[in-house]
Amino acid sequence: MKIQQQDIAKQHEQLQQEHREAFAFQQLQLDKKDIDTDALIQKIGAFQVAIPSWALGTGGTRFGRFPGGGEPRSLEEKIEDVGMLHALNRASGAISLHIPWDIPKDAQAIKQLADSLDLRFDAVNSNTFQDQADQKLSYKFGSLQHVDKSVREQAIAHNIDVIKYGEALGSDAITVWLSDGSSFPGQLNFRRAFQNTYESLQEIYGALPEQWKMFVEYKAFEPNFYSMTVGDWGQSLLYANKLGDQAYTLVDLGHHLPNANIEQIVALLLMEGKLGGFHFNDSKYGDDDLTVGCIKPYQLFLIFNELIEGMDARGMDHTTDLGWMIDASHNVKDPLEDLLQSVEAILIAYAQALLVDRKALNEAQLSNDTVSCQEILQDAYRTDVRALVAEARHRNGGALQPLKLFRDLEVRNSLIRERGSKTVATGL
Amino acid sequence: MKIQQQDIAKQHEQLQQEHREAFAFQQLQLDKKDIDTDALIQKIGAFQVAIPSWALGTGGTRFGRFPGGGEPRSLEEKIEDVGMLHALNRASGAISLHIPWDIPKDAQAIKQLADSLDLRFDAVNSNTFQDQADQKLSYKFGSLQHVDKSVREQAIAHNIDVIKYGEALGSDAITVWLSDGSSFPGQLNFRRAFQNTYESLQEIYGALPEQWKMFVEYKAFEPNFYSMTVGDWGQSLLYANKLGDQAYTLVDLGHHLPNANIEQIVALLLMEGKLGGFHFNDSKYGDDDLTVGCIKPYQLFLIFNELIEGMDARGMDHTTDLGWMIDASHNVKDPLEDLLQSVEAILIAYAQALLVDRKALNEAQLSNDTVSCQEILQDAYRTDVRALVAEARHRNGGALQPLKLFRDLEVRNSLIRERGSKTVATGL
Amino acid sequence: MKIQQQDIAKQHEQLQQEHREAFAFQQLQLDKKDIDTDALIQKIGAFQVAIPSWALGTGGTRFGRFPGGGEPRSLEEKIEDVGMLHALNRASGAISLHIPWDIPKDAQAIKQLADSLDLRFDAVNSNTFQDQADQKLSYKFGSLQHVDKSVREQAIAHNIDVIKYGEALGSDAITVWLSDGSSFPGQLNFRRAFQNTYESLQEIYGALPEQWKMFVEYKAFEPNFYSMTVGDWGQSLLYANKLGDQAYTLVDLGHHLPNANIEQIVALLLMEGKLGGFHFNDSKYGDDDLTVGCIKPYQLFLIFNELIEGMDARGMDHTTDLGWMIDASHNVKDPLEDLLQSVEAILIAYAQALLVDRKALNEAQLSNDTVSCQEILQDAYRTDVRALVAEARHRNGGALQPLKLFRDLEVRNSLIRERGSKTVATGL
Amino acid sequence: MKIQQQDIAKQHEQLQQEHREAFAFQQLQLDKKDIDTDALIQKIGAFQVAIPSWALGTGGTRFGRFPGGGEPRSLEEKIEDVGMLHALNRASGAISLHIPWDIPKDAQAIKQLADSLDLRFDAVNSNTFQDQADQKLSYKFGSLQHVDKSVREQAIAHNIDVIKYGEALGSDAITVWLSDGSSFPGQLNFRRAFQNTYESLQEIYGALPEQWKMFVEYKAFEPNFYSMTVGDWGQSLLYANKLGDQAYTLVDLGHHLPNANIEQIVALLLMEGKLGGFHFNDSKYGDDDLTVGCIKPYQLFLIFNELIEGMDARGMDHTTDLGWMIDASHNVKDPLEDLLQSVEAILIAYAQALLVDRKALNEAQLSNDTVSCQEILQDAYRTDVRALVAEARHRNGGALQPLKLFRDLEVRNSLIRERGSKTVATGL
Repeated sequence: MKIQQQDIAKQHEQLQQEHREAFAFQQLQLDKKDIDTDALIQKIGAFQVAIPSWALGTGGTRFGRFPGGGEPRSLEEKIEDVGMLHALNRASGAISLHIPWDIPKDAQAIKQLADSLDLRFDAVNSNTFQDQADQKLSYKFGSLQHVDKSVREQAIAHNIDVIKYGEALGSDAITVWLSDGSSFPGQLNFRRAFQNTYESLQEIYGALPEQWKMFVEYKAFEPNFYSMTVGDWGQSLLYANKLGDQAYTLVDLGHHLPNANIEQIVALLLMEGKLGGFHFNDSKYGDDDLTVGCIKPYQLFLIFNELIEGMDARGMDHTTDLGWMIDASHNVKDPLEDLLQSVEAILIAYAQALLVDRKALNEAQLSNDTVSCQEILQDAYRTDVRALVAEARHRNGGALQPLKLFRDLEVRNSLIRERGSKTVATGL
Repeated sequence: MKIQQQDIAKQHEQLQQEHREAFAFQQLQLDKKDIDTDALIQKIGAFQVAIPSWALGTGGTRFGRFPGGGEPRSLEEKIEDVGMLHALNRASGAISLHIPWDIPKDAQAIKQLADSLDLRFDAVNSNTFQDQADQKLSYKFGSLQHVDKSVREQAIAHNIDVIKYGEALGSDAITVWLSDGSSFPGQLNFRRAFQNTYESLQEIYGALPEQWKMFVEYKAFEPNFYSMTVGDWGQSLLYANKLGDQAYTLVDLGHHLPNANIEQIVALLLMEGKLGGFHFNDSKYGDDDLTVGCIKPYQLFLIFNELIEGMDARGMDHTTDLGWMIDASHNVKDPLEDLLQSVEAILIAYAQALLVDRKALNEAQLSNDTVSCQEILQDAYRTDVRALVAEARHRNGGALQPLKLFRDLEVRNSLIRERGSKTVATGL
Repeated sequence: MKIQQQDIAKQHEQLQQEHREAFAFQQLQLDKKDIDTDALIQKIGAFQVAIPSWALGTGGTRFGRFPGGGEPRSLEEKIEDVGMLHALNRASGAISLHIPWDIPKDAQAIKQLADSLDLRFDAVNSNTFQDQADQKLSYKFGSLQHVDKSVREQAIAHNIDVIKYGEALGSDAITVWLSDGSSFPGQLNFRRAFQNTYESLQEIYGALPEQWKMFVEYKAFEPNFYSMTVGDWGQSLLYANKLGDQAYTLVDLGHHLPNANIEQIVALLLMEGKLGGFHFNDSKYGDDDLTVGCIKPYQLFLIFNELIEGMDARGMDHTTDLGWMIDASHNVKDPLEDLLQSVEAILIAYAQALLVDRKALNEAQLSNDTVSCQEILQDAYRTDVRALVAEARHRNGGALQPLKLFRDLEVRNSLIRERGSKTVATGL
Repeated sequence: MKIQQQDIAKQHEQLQQEHREAFAFQQLQLDKKDIDTDALIQKIGAFQVAIPSWALGTGGTRFGRFPGGGEPRSLEEKIEDVGMLHALNRASGAISLHIPWDIPKDAQAIKQLADSLDLRFDAVNSNTFQDQADQKLSYKFGSLQHVDKSVREQAIAHNIDVIKYGEALGSDAITVWLSDGSSFPGQLNFRRAFQNTYESLQEIYGALPEQWKMFVEYKAFEPNFYSMTVGDWGQSLLYANKLGDQAYTLVDLGHHLPNANIEQIVALLLMEGKLGGFHFNDSKYGDDDLTVGCIKPYQLFLIFNELIEGMDARGMDHTTDLGWMIDASHNVKDPLEDLLQSVEAILIAYAQALLVDRKALNEAQLSNDTVSCQEILQDAYRTDVRALVAEARHRNGGALQPLKLFRDLEVRNSLIRERGSKTVATGL
């Protein structure tokens, strides 16, 4: 199943009048505010979010999994799925692989396939939170933190392998997410767990190619329920600072204690030059891994507001200087539809945050005019930017309404016909 | 200080062209969806939110209070402040009094003043969470729950007094919020505390005039830090069901444990015919009492979505069948500006929720099309309804942009000139 | 593998001197407080906690499962495992089955096996949170709440089947835990979900044998991440009250929002005559399903304090009038050792709560002497009751130190020899 | 009012027989474990907890304050109150002053008074979270973070003043707790707030006497409800690391998000050599400031377990190398009784943590024997150490049961007679 350029064109024909009206209105509003619409649209159009290979199939919880059909059965089919998303929205031009679920047998062929779909390979991800069938030693009690040096060595070797797979595909970063921690008071010596983890990370860091980054992801809880050995941004930053210039903190929206102020964390990490990447999703309770923007869209906007402010202050490029990825689990939605909704929500938040009148905000802040600060932020947030996002997509060759086109073309049915209704993609 | 009709007209002149454009665009969009814009605007215009008398001055925390100037020094001045808000936004046509902070000495005169400003008296509020200077017995260990019957009787008598004050002014409801509870394990016998509270409420209930309602407000914690004797909606509903048909639960957005699904609570209380009223504010951590919509505007929209769905299902009138009130504390903003922002946020959420395509949502729900359910909700939420709200206000004689007019007229300076810069309104 | 009486006797011989000393000291202390040690020990000895059949194997999270060896491969082996626990601690004299994981093919034989191990069958548990291989319709979008009547009927029929299996084994209660809910705003109409669930529960209730109870379990979140259709005690109580006298609320310690006051919930449910049963475990973040008492042992004590107070006030029998069960998941511990630790923690908390000087506590409460209230509770809690619990066990024929005996006898190794090292018990 | 040595002796006479029995039993148990009881008791006896001057009067919440009587009216009376606590428990040998509430007019005399009561002056505390009557510029929008340099300078000068007051009294540390932050999204530029705060702290740090420490306290929320500029341990550590060797992080138990693992934070800060001090209290919801050990005594034990492990690993002195202080608010208890309960809870947790068999724990950790890890910790925690604590107190000249003696001597009544029943101590 492939999206054809003519399908996109056909939808454009149907919808363009309505789109033109809405876009014209937006443009008019922007003109009044002396905002350069074309520049804005260019920024929106340049923004790309990587799709993780494990999010292309139905996810599950420990209580069960309710698979759909037509899920990708191979790395090739996963890449094709991302290619299709990217064809639709022109904003999903990267894929993030997970080893060992996605070991490329023929890296050259895989790379060509991706190239043909205009995709690049984003950060590669290691997995030491599960035991694989052929694995010598178990990660039941951790991997990089493990009290047994031979387990640590096995986990280090795995991570170095992952880097090599990534190199072959043109990735330039590895994300290390550890489930290491403890479920019971007393189970770990916290200091030893930290030191072991640090030394293990040093070994992996030592194997990084020159231009590579290492992202040290943190998580407050789950699957360990008492402590996590990289449990919050403070711990991740400790590791990253000790490791060196190529190590960064990675923020996943769902990996915090209740009520954490994530936007402040983002701002401080940018201040320290140590924010490396971002995993998008949404949640109400924990690492719920829901569609981006489905629960707290205003928080997402506030985070983008800090990202833009902080990146601009350091002269960073919005598109390339941070790793942007979705990390979600699709338990009750079609995974591809879910991803289309997530990317849309990200672009909307990004566009709204671009609209923030930073000069006025700065002045209001400097005069402690809290009422105006809120007005300025909410003026941007309350703006209906959907026509701007659609226009950016259109100019890049994407569909005005990707989800609608996905449905109109009955993509899922085609995939089921091609792949069967009982396929199960690797992943969570 | 009074807002003159000509001030409003003058602003309209300045802003009307821009407003007309935005409104025309909205109307066009609504037409395409076969939504009757005029009917919609009438609903928005009819919606009224009561202003609590204690929110007209600067609030504080246990750590300190940083008062502003020009705060109302008397009940009359409080009413004038609400009158001014109402003149500006035509959506604050009620005031909710707090006894003993606002005891009207001459009810007739007070009523006339309110009438002259087009204000009615919303639910009256009793206070047994503080000791008053002239009070015989202390509420240190609770009021309606107290182990000492004479304390309970004092608190009951106070509540009955409050009803009488309310009757004289034309109120038709009393809100009973109790800080009763315990700060230490063992301090209370939970069952006895419940029974005492229930019996006390019965006495107050017995004194209710025929058309009156009693709102039993719940709160999860603070100022008691271990248990609250009306601690959640389940407890409030228990009391309300035992008391009778005139007793209802009142929901305050800030009175829940972290991550509570308030919109579901609202839906179930409506289902049971026991939702009585609503206190608006916003919060991140607890009962932070921040400006409505400043932290979780999507949650506010989802709540309105349930309110409308549930009220329509019971044939309830949106404007009159529930008690709508703001309950916030203005620690770092001008209280009147804060209230204008809150009312605006409420109207925006209400308008967006009115836009939800209920027929389509129902169909999507019935076919478990979760993706469409979200699309339908977010299509309404992402719509920029500000021109609709402004138009509704304008048609009612209010200002297109109340906050801007408040600032342009330098209302606060006038109030400081009139009332002085060191005034402190009664309240928290 | 069976624990022999002589093994227990042998341990007693080794440990009895130390035990005698500690017990004598405890007895002396109790004598001074005029507490009848024998009566106390009898109460402790009578207390029985059911073991769920799914907790006999290694549990897992969505991220992985690290099985141990020697897990039970059949219902018979599960019963044998519980029998072994009961032989060791004489406090695990019941097993709670889960259908369809534990369908008894020959109920008579199963019953005899249980009888021979002095076990009875506690509440049976239905499962509509997973799809079974041979199942017609999917529970992906709920079971008793489902918008499609035929799905509801399937789920109702399953629950009625469960009752029949339970009847054949001598159970007298069914626990209905529903994962029904929604993961996205808009996915459900809350009222319809409630009504469908209620009507479905009515059908099941109608099939209850005369002496049976139905336990309606609630849970705040997971596996649904936006709403749960039986989400808190207030909702469970609504269902139970509407259903009738045989319906009760069941409390699981891990099923609450952060910071919930569970002991107050327990007290109120007992007050209403609607507390039916209890699932023990411990947790820091959510439904972590950790060993009882490993995180918040004082909370456990406070809960038992309310249970005893409330049951005594209603003249209820501590042992038989509520359903007591462990519901935990053993991810990094040997399941049987974990269960031994859990039962021990329960008995310790129960014994401590029995020591609370209720007369003095009542007096302190009635005089608002909060300091004394705390002293009285903590005096009981700080008491080292382990010798009392051991003595109660000993008098019942159990081991002084069950966990030590389990290890000394190398039970796990025997089980691995018998059953193999790659067995995986059914369950989570 | 002073506690006389003979009062203590008299109580000892009454209670000694019972105490001897309990102590003898404990000693026997310790002997069996080869623990040196005398050494243990010496450690317990050496432990001292500072009392904050603001905790000697009744505290309050924003909803009200219910004062008791006999509260200290002056710094001298505050010191006398702490002296009395110390006479009773011999474990409260320090007082922590708060400027400007406790400005000593005659430092020499104040020092002599403290000396006479065997008290030393612990860390001094600055206050920039309130405006004082005579203050030029307001802290409404922060102090060290303020956008206006002159406000920052005022706050810096105040902190330097506080250091000078402390020097005159023999303190050797300043605790800087900032309420700085924001209550609304957009109100602050996070980076600027951090930088301003950092530069302000640098100025204060520059004024530190050579042997002094600066404690940078963090807090998650309240009184600011959106962001705190020193909001978690990660931020505090950033400041402390940038400032230099004399700067440390201070942990207050109530200053975290829900479910935070405080013991892990403590362990990591010790690992980094950056833990400076500790504020004890207890809480269920936020900074509830309840009596130590009244809600989560096991957490307190786990924290002490890490403190001892971490301090021993660095060769630190338990008594002198960290600043130990209570920071609580006494809303419904007699402040002095509350403090006696808190110190007792601290000593019990410390004693239990001293009992942990560290060698066995280390071995269990190294073999991933999680079950044993828990057994080892809980064996210590379940031990009734009250006789050990009482013996330590007795050997130091304190009362066997301080709270009982406080009540038997009717201290509060004496204080009311001396000071009146309407006194209100400065503080929260």
